[in-house]
Amino acid sequence: MAKERLPSRSDNFSEWYNRLVLRAELADYAPVRGCMVIRPYGWALWENIQAALDQRFKATGHMNAAFPLLIPSSFMEREREHVEGFSPELAVVTIGGGEELEEPLIVRPTSETIIGHMYAKWIKSYRDLPVLINLWNSVVRWEMRTKLFLRTTEFYWQEGHTAHATEEEGMAETLRMLEVYADFAENEAAVPVVKGRKSDSEKFAGAKQSFSIEAMMGDTRALQAGTSHNLGQNFARAFNIRYLDQENTQQYCWTTSWGLSTRFIGAIIMVHGDDQGLILPPRLAPYQAVIVPIFKNEDERRDVMETIDSIRANLSEIRVKLDDREGMTPGYKFNDWELRGVPVRIEIGPRDVAKGTVVLARRDQPGREGRRTVNQQGLASVLTELLDDIQTSIYQRAKAFLQANKHEPKDFEEFKQVVEGGWADVWWCGDAGCEAEIKQQTRATIRCIPLDEHSGDGICIHCEKPATERAIFARGY
Amino acid sequence: MAKERLPSRSDNFSEWYNRLVLRAELADYAPVRGCMVIRPYGWALWENIQAALDQRFKATGHMNAAFPLLIPSSFMEREREHVEGFSPELAVVTIGGGEELEEPLIVRPTSETIIGHMYAKWIKSYRDLPVLINLWNSVVRWEMRTKLFLRTTEFYWQEGHTAHATEEEGMAETLRMLEVYADFAENEAAVPVVKGRKSDSEKFAGAKQSFSIEAMMGDTRALQAGTSHNLGQNFARAFNIRYLDQENTQQYCWTTSWGLSTRFIGAIIMVHGDDQGLILPPRLAPYQAVIVPIFKNEDERRDVMETIDSIRANLSEIRVKLDDREGMTPGYKFNDWELRGVPVRIEIGPRDVAKGTVVLARRDQPGREGRRTVNQQGLASVLTELLDDIQTSIYQRAKAFLQANKHEPKDFEEFKQVVEGGWADVWWCGDAGCEAEIKQQTRATIRCIPLDEHSGDGICIHCEKPATERAIFARGY
Repeated sequence: MAKERLPSRSDNFSEWYNRLVLRAELADYAPVRGCMVIRPYGWALWENIQAALDQRFKATGHMNAAFPLLIPSSFMEREREHVEGFSPELAVVTIGGGEELEEPLIVRPTSETIIGHMYAKWIKSYRDLPVLINLWNSVVRWEMRTKLFLRTTEFYWQEGHTAHATEEEGMAETLRMLEVYADFAENEAAVPVVKGRKSDSEKFAGAKQSFSIEAMMGDTRALQAGTSHNLGQNFARAFNIRYLDQENTQQYCWTTSWGLSTRFIGAIIMVHGDDQGLILPPRLAPYQAVIVPIFKNEDERRDVMETIDSIRANLSEIRVKLDDREGMTPGYKFNDWELRGVPVRIEIGPRDVAKGTVVLARRDQPGREGRRTVNQQGLASVLTELLDDIQTSIYQRAKAFLQANKHEPKDFEEFKQVVEGGWADVWWCGDAGCEAEIKQQTRATIRCIPLDEHSGDGICIHCEKPATERAIFARGY
Repeated sequence: MAKERLPSRSDNFSEWYNRLVLRAELADYAPVRGCMVIRPYGWALWENIQAALDQRFKATGHMNAAFPLLIPSSFMEREREHVEGFSPELAVVTIGGGEELEEPLIVRPTSETIIGHMYAKWIKSYRDLPVLINLWNSVVRWEMRTKLFLRTTEFYWQEGHTAHATEEEGMAETLRMLEVYADFAENEAAVPVVKGRKSDSEKFAGAKQSFSIEAMMGDTRALQAGTSHNLGQNFARAFNIRYLDQENTQQYCWTTSWGLSTRFIGAIIMVHGDDQGLILPPRLAPYQAVIVPIFKNEDERRDVMETIDSIRANLSEIRVKLDDREGMTPGYKFNDWELRGVPVRIEIGPRDVAKGTVVLARRDQPGREGRRTVNQQGLASVLTELLDDIQTSIYQRAKAFLQANKHEPKDFEEFKQVVEGGWADVWWCGDAGCEAEIKQQTRATIRCIPLDEHSGDGICIHCEKPATERAIFARGY
């Protein structure tokens, strides 16, 4: 049953990731080009992500709904930038019920267009605003090079779509949801992020402005982990979403959209994982603790299992998995759950039964220093504290890693070195041509123009013209 | 703002339904042929249905996962009955990323085939069994005549897919999930159902046996509200799902699938609704109670709203909506929430503020007898009891209606009358030809062969040959 070891992260980060996703049974390759199957363990993680986000969406006044998967192809063509952005990656239904369709249908790559059509029908007056709707679904974008969770033809996400009476309200919503994403990432996933605005060349096709949260993976590359778009009146004009204001005048609405996808699972893997496998943040882990019984004979087994039953009765607030699989050694199980990133392992053997103790091993500190013996009495509160401590510790570690690898190079020579293995936080002139040259020379792109950076001015890192904006450049996923 | 009244159920049940779905903002027609948009109020109802089912699926050992939307067309052809059943209603993707696909992809009408492919890959040994997986997703079946929730090209559902080592375990799972559906329908949705087996001509394409729960709508027509299929080894053989048993011999698995869809929302509407609109079962209602403030001037408004704030603080266990919309009369709001089926209305006016009372109006008893004045003190427990009582009352009413309209006609003449406005519970010879003749002559089909019916034997209601099975015939949705 022994399986080969994972490649180490330093030897081959990409292969470490690919094999880990499969070995931990998070996902598998589907027999459809570029698609994945998300397996129960991976989907349970996504369900916890969904619950944490959904609660925040509802607390900020949003409700969920469902819009069709299939979109008339003419809809895609109404907004100029949108059609240009998405046309190359569409999947098209041309046959329905055995007959060729008069108008082909697009499998949704995102829902702004069909949302626009319906909002135009539903919104009549200022009393109908704001409209605050979110969808949980999957979308399809034809991908040539795929990587599980990070880039697949079909992926799962939520897409929020809102309509407002004023430009200010649209902008406030855009930033509110960016804040919700950052709060979720940091406090639920223990993933530190930088919030910022996308450069024009990196913004969503059809948006006025796009914002994102950016996270640093374990190989220092950046991953866009959530995006929030201020769509201005672009879609409102394309789809005629209008309302009568209090003076009885027709006005176009201001709309937003925002999304976070199963890609975020890739971020969790790459931010926290180590050479032994996954390290899942306790707040999102499908199992927060796994119990591994240890015994040599049937008498010991009976005593150990009895003790486990009585312990579990007090752990109802914690997501606990009992690994009672037969025909596997405890050592095999230890490795298996380490690989799968369960935050705490609870070992119970005959000596623990006799002494009224259990052994706790924390996943984020492998080896002896992460193990300790505690009393069965009061285990629930000890575990709860331990889970909180792990949540904080892995966040701190990721934060320190981000800080250690985010640099402020003084000139372009240093910049080129920095982006080989880190992020560069620099002055940028704001010119798309300059941005393109940097990308061509270094493969680093602008991840975002951070919202909470030092203001002032300086000299562009590349062209040395005057600059008023700081930008983070990095190689990205 | 006054809207036209709904047609009455007795005048035009179908039109009552169509207009109610739109007016209550449960769903709307999409700009894609045969598709619907489920609006926030309808989706909130579906979310509560999902939660009630999901909890039951997990309690019986299932986990959720996600499988691709797109299925290679060759997969559909592997199981003979399956391809015959589904071919006429497929939506086919022929273009991806701007190029014609070598093998067209089917937008999933159901996932047995792609599940079969993956299970064959994952299952090696008896230790891997059972596999108990459920999916929450949407599927597409090209429909010519559509009706919101009841028959749409795309609909939302869950599909469970399990694999087992023995025939007995497969059968036990099939019946266990039928029981879960019946329990959900009766105890959460207050919809009484009859559990039974489908006749061969009505079973799922590819199943060995299909089972369903059948509910009686307010017009006495039957609606199949959930199905559970024993797939035998049909898909295991078609997709080579095999395991090594304890004697190291290769064996085919036994598989099942089972599903319940947004169609169930149609059942809730048609079982409980009245001429005023929806009546939602308290356990599933998005809002269990709505507060309508009543005031004539600003002073009164302030007092009423203050009282409402203090009342709401004690109602955190109940899903309460405050209707503080401006520019609408209380009477308008009363009608609106009656239409939308909120189980209890809480009215609070200046007199209530002075006396420390509120008025409760129960939706299932319109008019004076459903209204009573109660103290603000202790409101939470009064409301909780009232909601339980409503849940029970609407179940009893539906149950009585079912019993009153399910008949046991003595001969085929009586049978023909009965199925004009009710169900016929009769002996049937088991012959598909006889079943087809009955359908042709009466438009009534076999809804199911009930599981808990009287055993014995009799004479077929139509051909008068010896019969050993009772069947329920009815016109269905």
